[in-house]
Amino acid sequence: MNFLKEQLKLIRKEDPAFKSFWELFLYPSFVVQIYHKISHFLYLHKHYFLARFLSERAKRKTGIEIHPGARIGKNFFIDHGNGVVIGETTFIGNNVTIFHGVTLGGVNDCKGKRHPTIRDNVIIGAHAQVLGNIIIGKNAKIGAGAVVLKNVSANKTVVGIPAKEKNCINKKKRVQ
Amino acid sequence: MNFLKEQLKLIRKEDPAFKSFWELFLYPSFVVQIYHKISHFLYLHKHYFLARFLSERAKRKTGIEIHPGARIGKNFFIDHGNGVVIGETTFIGNNVTIFHGVTLGGVNDCKGKRHPTIRDNVIIGAHAQVLGNIIIGKNAKIGAGAVVLKNVSANKTVVGIPAKEKNCINKKKRVQ
Amino acid sequence: MNFLKEQLKLIRKEDPAFKSFWELFLYPSFVVQIYHKISHFLYLHKHYFLARFLSERAKRKTGIEIHPGARIGKNFFIDHGNGVVIGETTFIGNNVTIFHGVTLGGVNDCKGKRHPTIRDNVIIGAHAQVLGNIIIGKNAKIGAGAVVLKNVSANKTVVGIPAKEKNCINKKKRVQ
Repeated sequence: MNFLKEQLKLIRKEDPAFKSFWELFLYPSFVVQIYHKISHFLYLHKHYFLARFLSERAKRKTGIEIHPGARIGKNFFIDHGNGVVIGETTFIGNNVTIFHGVTLGGVNDCKGKRHPTIRDNVIIGAHAQVLGNIIIGKNAKIGAGAVVLKNVSANKTVVGIPAKEKNCINKKKRVQ
Repeated sequence: MNFLKEQLKLIRKEDPAFKSFWELFLYPSFVVQIYHKISHFLYLHKHYFLARFLSERAKRKTGIEIHPGARIGKNFFIDHGNGVVIGETTFIGNNVTIFHGVTLGGVNDCKGKRHPTIRDNVIIGAHAQVLGNIIIGKNAKIGAGAVVLKNVSANKTVVGIPAKEKNCINKKKRVQ
Repeated sequence: MNFLKEQLKLIRKEDPAFKSFWELFLYPSFVVQIYHKISHFLYLHKHYFLARFLSERAKRKTGIEIHPGARIGKNFFIDHGNGVVIGETTFIGNNVTIFHGVTLGGVNDCKGKRHPTIRDNVIIGAHAQVLGNIIIGKNAKIGAGAVVLKNVSANKTVVGIPAKEKNCINKKKRVQ
């Protein structure tokens, strides 16, 4: 129930198009996180097949693929969501917002931690690709369509392919 | 019925892979626009939940997310379509073609008009992101993967991240 | 059965997150290729509607759209897959790996061969757009988010919008 309240508050804040309580259950972000909570639990108890089965079902329903192994903090919001891929060893902090088409993926075949770590308050714009075992610092912003292959320092904004720092952004902006 | 005829003519023109009449009903572009006509009607009459419910269903079926509030002109064609997101306050003119992965989205949390206005005959290439309350002028073309954050003048072609004008394109080209 | 064994071996190699045999049936790459084998057969026998019907069903289930006309070699692997679009006249060689969001598409309305030819051992990163009747040479790699509009020579790596050659990559790297 806490999760429900938290999400309701969050979506109300994040999405200006939100109109009524029941819409909550139409939000892919909400639906996929319910699934993920169960599949992550199953994953931790080594029911890998069942865990993956649930995450695939969630993907068919929402277009969002979160591997059961991914660890996700509080107030995580995925706007729209179609095409999002989140890898097995991804860590996501609190208050993170990502948009549709974002990948938090790997770049090689080695076992172990191979996906990004996203710290608190990060915003990742639509279709940005964040690849490899890198760290995205607190309050960082990643522009739409960026391809991020290196660490991003806290409070920085990066854009482009490959992603480079942008100088002159200070005000909080929602990069959809 | 007019809409059916219009779409049939349109798809026949746009897609060289189109082979027979009944294929029309397999086109996500056609299916999602039927849904959108209903959900937009419901939205205008303030049945917001039902409207959103239909648009979410359409998204699950087609991979295309059109907010019930979006206003769309005639002869609108979405090729392939998976991953398309069209925001609440988007206006789309006549004879517009967009490809899969395109976003017509917002960049901040303010209420009011926060999504793009697309004028007549615009073509938007695959995975292009068009963000904010900007205007894309008549006959403009946006290249695949571009991130457009500023107005685009009529008859111009823009490409890249962030999108810049391209000089030497004159002939009509379909930028998939 | 050969196809099943081939795919099992392939996915075991490609995906470090793969854990148990039955997971195979959860892989969109596997599911969509089963569908494609049938729809391609129907296409060759000119049952175009049925062929397209199957490919659309496969797309709803997996998020991967492969036109029934596309010709695909052995050991083809699509990682994650949501948002992939493969056009009618695409040829794909052996041992090719592509990631989610990749387009192998066309740039104009002419009939005939209008989609890319992908040679053996090519790797195409997430959300890369490969457009037009171009040839991607053996062992080439295409970076995430790249937009490729020209031929790529064998053994080269290209990145960016539009995609340009990258000098200093020699070791085999998996560009997710």
